[in-house]
Amino acid sequence: MVERVGLGFAKKAASLSTKKGRDETGLFLVEGDKIVRDMPEDWPVAYYLASVSYADATDLSFFEKRATVHVMEDELFKRASDTLTPQGIAAVCEAKRPSAKDAFSPGCLALMCEGLSDPGNIGTLIRTADAAGCACVVLTEGSADVYNPKIVRATAGSIFRLKVVTGANGLEMARQMKREGVRLAAASPRGKSYPYSLDFKSAICVLVGNEARGLSKELEELADFKVKLPMSGTLESLNAAMAGGILLYEAVRQRLT
Amino acid sequence: MVERVGLGFAKKAASLSTKKGRDETGLFLVEGDKIVRDMPEDWPVAYYLASVSYADATDLSFFEKRATVHVMEDELFKRASDTLTPQGIAAVCEAKRPSAKDAFSPGCLALMCEGLSDPGNIGTLIRTADAAGCACVVLTEGSADVYNPKIVRATAGSIFRLKVVTGANGLEMARQMKREGVRLAAASPRGKSYPYSLDFKSAICVLVGNEARGLSKELEELADFKVKLPMSGTLESLNAAMAGGILLYEAVRQRLT
Repeated sequence: MVERVGLGFAKKAASLSTKKGRDETGLFLVEGDKIVRDMPEDWPVAYYLASVSYADATDLSFFEKRATVHVMEDELFKRASDTLTPQGIAAVCEAKRPSAKDAFSPGCLALMCEGLSDPGNIGTLIRTADAAGCACVVLTEGSADVYNPKIVRATAGSIFRLKVVTGANGLEMARQMKREGVRLAAASPRGKSYPYSLDFKSAICVLVGNEARGLSKELEELADFKVKLPMSGTLESLNAAMAGGILLYEAVRQRLT
Repeated sequence: MVERVGLGFAKKAASLSTKKGRDETGLFLVEGDKIVRDMPEDWPVAYYLASVSYADATDLSFFEKRATVHVMEDELFKRASDTLTPQGIAAVCEAKRPSAKDAFSPGCLALMCEGLSDPGNIGTLIRTADAAGCACVVLTEGSADVYNPKIVRATAGSIFRLKVVTGANGLEMARQMKREGVRLAAASPRGKSYPYSLDFKSAICVLVGNEARGLSKELEELADFKVKLPMSGTLESLNAAMAGGILLYEAVRQRLT
């Protein structure tokens, strides 16, 4: 079904760009033609939003089969959107908050981000973790919310495929993983070893800390090993997402060869 | 020397966040306490800008030794700044535009970005290339400008250490590299090989394309090999900067072991 709507819907959608708005409704906004079309069929869509221009230029039957398409003036869509140049299509979806139960399995690869704050970094890491075949990504309570629209976009759809545990207590989660036989590899410039000499083939979780502060001392001490990447010259560190991604792919390399 | 200045200086600084403003003056803006203090001593600083709050709270002698510190009202500094929450200190520096001459050496590692557009991606890649010990980074003419303030920040200071060749013609540069014995490794989802079975020890340049379009067909055809990363499930690609960084670190790994 296609329905014309007004300001009220635009305001509701705009409120989903805040954590408060998402928590109150249990919904989040996914923007852009490709990511919206590529969503898995079993992810609950409350409704779609489309701009008049998009609706005029597009066969909407793909969307109508799944949920009502609410069409609004381009100006209103811009207000609903989190982007500067909106594509004119968005899905309002149910936010899933999976628990850590059954997240880890023998031999699994996982990623935990402690207090990571940059949405681009988090989104890119989720996408990379998905590509690397991670069983799950854990975001501790101090991290940005996974349904932040910038994160959703940066995951390029991986948010729909990968189990992302949010709001976790980092230390509790680390202890749980250790009990389940998952070793913890802390990415740290204070690390003693390069990843190339460590075993990333058995169950392992890569720990990545905040962009400025790194990992907390407590979590770093719980880790089975601290790992650093070789660094030329006077450089102190890599971007947090980059360091995490390189470590995940070192695990991919070891598991292939 | 410390001098109080007004709106004129704020406007001049703000104009440096545009390519036009930088091209007309040959200057660019570097913001933030850490990056400004850590600049190499031989990089030409035209002058510093500080907010009144920053100047009141800080011993400015470190800056005064090197160039005049222009102090302006906090509100004006905000106008000069490219960030939402400015730290109150910036350096206006001379932009260097090194040529590709002597950029490559036997056994060197290099990176070329063709038409990469996201400032965060470019900055992160320059930082990663610096960490990986690259001899230089080449940005082709379609890429965002290296002195874009968002790129400068994302490099975390690597922009001052690494040779970054800008505005290059990608195909000409690729041919020059091949003549100088540098092999070209195109990052491409159409690649046939994983990097782990390829030789990254001899002189090599990693080619990374645009976020949406990837590498141009012409450049991909000039490459000595197309390389892809293992990818789980239905995922098509990694973030461009992440893919480039993982390939650069595969070269680091091979060169260490």
